[in-house]
Amino acid sequence: MHARIHITLKNGVLDPQGEAVHHALGSLGFEGLSNVRQGKVIDMDIAGDDPDAARASVEAMCQQLLANTVIESYQIELTE
Amino acid sequence: MHARIHITLKNGVLDPQGEAVHHALGSLGFEGLSNVRQGKVIDMDIAGDDPDAARASVEAMCQQLLANTVIESYQIELTE
Repeated sequence: MHARIHITLKNGVLDPQGEAVHHALGSLGFEGLSNVRQGKVIDMDIAGDDPDAARASVEAMCQQLLANTVIESYQIELTE
Repeated sequence: MHARIHITLKNGVLDPQGEAVHHALGSLGFEGLSNVRQGKVIDMDIAGDDPDAARASVEAMCQQLLANTVIESYQIELTE
């Protein structure tokens, strides 16, 4: 199975990377932007065919390593 | 409109971050993983209601600033 995990800063947490991107885009003439936020995406292939087991495993990965759950939230998408 | 942009390394480009994540997950006992790749996700709100104009604008942002198109590819998702 293929898993795609989005890890993004929670709302209200300052995002200096997003601010920098917003500012740089403004310098290039892109206007009308707001709420520019940058996060991480992690893709992986997981052996096995059981979506429930795969989701539980990815949840554990996020909790233990991939996300800092104090300031980040994560979303998991599984595809065949 | 809301835009979500995924920026990922092209296939074949070495991904040390993905390797590090893969290795760290292995150390924690997560097995059966392959093709672990890490990329960026950028979210933003764009003023206006024209999806074609928004897409063209985001394409230009990716080409000019957000992605290094020599080694990275990008995907754009627009939602209302």
